[in-house]
Amino acid sequence: MSGPFQTWMTSTQAAVEIALTQYLPAPTQLPQKLHEAMAYAVLDGGKRVRPLLVFAAGNLFSAPNELLSRAACAVEMIHAYSLVHDDMPCMDDDALRRGKPTVHKKYDEATALLVGDALQAQAFLVLSEAQAEADRKLPMLQLLAHASGSLGMCGGQAIDLDSVGIALNITELEQMHRLKTGALLRASVLLGAMSGKHLSEAETSALDDYARAIGLAFQVVDDVLDATADSATLGKTAGKDAADNKPTYVSLLGLEASRQLAQKLCSDAHHALSIFGESAQYLHDLADLIVQRKA
Amino acid sequence: MSGPFQTWMTSTQAAVEIALTQYLPAPTQLPQKLHEAMAYAVLDGGKRVRPLLVFAAGNLFSAPNELLSRAACAVEMIHAYSLVHDDMPCMDDDALRRGKPTVHKKYDEATALLVGDALQAQAFLVLSEAQAEADRKLPMLQLLAHASGSLGMCGGQAIDLDSVGIALNITELEQMHRLKTGALLRASVLLGAMSGKHLSEAETSALDDYARAIGLAFQVVDDVLDATADSATLGKTAGKDAADNKPTYVSLLGLEASRQLAQKLCSDAHHALSIFGESAQYLHDLADLIVQRKA
Repeated sequence: MSGPFQTWMTSTQAAVEIALTQYLPAPTQLPQKLHEAMAYAVLDGGKRVRPLLVFAAGNLFSAPNELLSRAACAVEMIHAYSLVHDDMPCMDDDALRRGKPTVHKKYDEATALLVGDALQAQAFLVLSEAQAEADRKLPMLQLLAHASGSLGMCGGQAIDLDSVGIALNITELEQMHRLKTGALLRASVLLGAMSGKHLSEAETSALDDYARAIGLAFQVVDDVLDATADSATLGKTAGKDAADNKPTYVSLLGLEASRQLAQKLCSDAHHALSIFGESAQYLHDLADLIVQRKA
Repeated sequence: MSGPFQTWMTSTQAAVEIALTQYLPAPTQLPQKLHEAMAYAVLDGGKRVRPLLVFAAGNLFSAPNELLSRAACAVEMIHAYSLVHDDMPCMDDDALRRGKPTVHKKYDEATALLVGDALQAQAFLVLSEAQAEADRKLPMLQLLAHASGSLGMCGGQAIDLDSVGIALNITELEQMHRLKTGALLRASVLLGAMSGKHLSEAETSALDDYARAIGLAFQVVDDVLDATADSATLGKTAGKDAADNKPTYVSLLGLEASRQLAQKLCSDAHHALSIFGESAQYLHDLADLIVQRKA
């Protein structure tokens, strides 16, 4: 990863943090506890991979900054709400997230439930209120709703739930992750690009190929890290997949083959970007980042 | 309530049931269990008060049927998701809803959580995909997101959570309900009207007054019914408010004064409609229905 990429990444992450603060309801506004808990769930956490994808894809087509910023925050709010709900006792029952107590531990379960619900609504609100023409925003809202719902992220979580203790094969595992994490990563890339222009079929197809590859790579690396890193490094409980008897790439392919698969997917992602030339450098480097990350 | 109103109501309820089936993901589609549970949560239940409000308000301005139908289903999906989450053990912990086992009883808690999350996304998807211009749909999506989120329904639920065992006065109680149930009832009325035309300030203001009055009336009657009806009639557990030590209109004002307040709010609602003349008959009759309902 190049020096300019690092600089761009750091400044984009900082800008996203400011934007998230701005697009969340102020914690001084009623109901204060809910708004404080929403901010706790969203701010000061994570690598902001999805917002980075939005901005990197927007960069390809000189998208206006305000629309990109709102799209990035909307996707991150959907992601954050899914983590809050995922961590609840009836789902993964996790006490630690991004190195901090999870929302239901810091507050209580009922608040965690409402935080997630309200963040989802806030995501649609933030995107819908962007300073852009309705014709531009509407397909973006559709994409976000589709990627979040039962044929996207929530659907993937449902398949995940039903797969505990069941011997999924590699195709079924891939299908599950394509929805569970892939749909929102894909939406991030497309939302960024759609912020700039109406995409041609060839552009959508190339971005789809890119997004599909990094989406799977992301999950393969997640499984590798869950099996090899410690909780302090991850900022969440390590080794949970094995403990929960969940199918993973590592359990199906082994550690070394999983690492090789991640590298192969990274090359696929790079290859998909070739039609965009030099201007896709940030998307190119983000694929590297996803595969090389340590947490 | 007039004969034509009864006929209109019955046929609208039937049309809404068909539309809901159409706008939910088919239970044969993967993930099947999630889609089946979403249908369980939404179909064959309730009086469809919110969809009726959408159609009655749309009727004022000759709104196109497809857009009205999608707006009605979107609002009902938001309402249904809030009931699914409200019934969960960490919230109201209720086993019975619309005379059937609640979603977490029929399935499990994790499924109930995902059903609610996916229904919220589906609501935005269904409305966003209507056959109408983006300029017309966008403010409707904004309104729905605002009414559902932390400054609307979710916010009201958060205030409700924090009010258990606390001596709210009548103003605070009203404020809580204005968000918790009022915001979505108001959205129903406005979404119906906005489906037909861009509203003038006077029209918005009149519909706001109407919606505010029926929203409060709805809650006052809810409290009266919770204190006086039995579980079989209500289709949910009766007497829960007193058991949970929740502030209600009945506990603050007494039963008789609560009934009188409901009547007064019904008159207020009728009065607010006067600028629309005869064409507001269905909205007029819906106010009566809300106050006279027995469950």
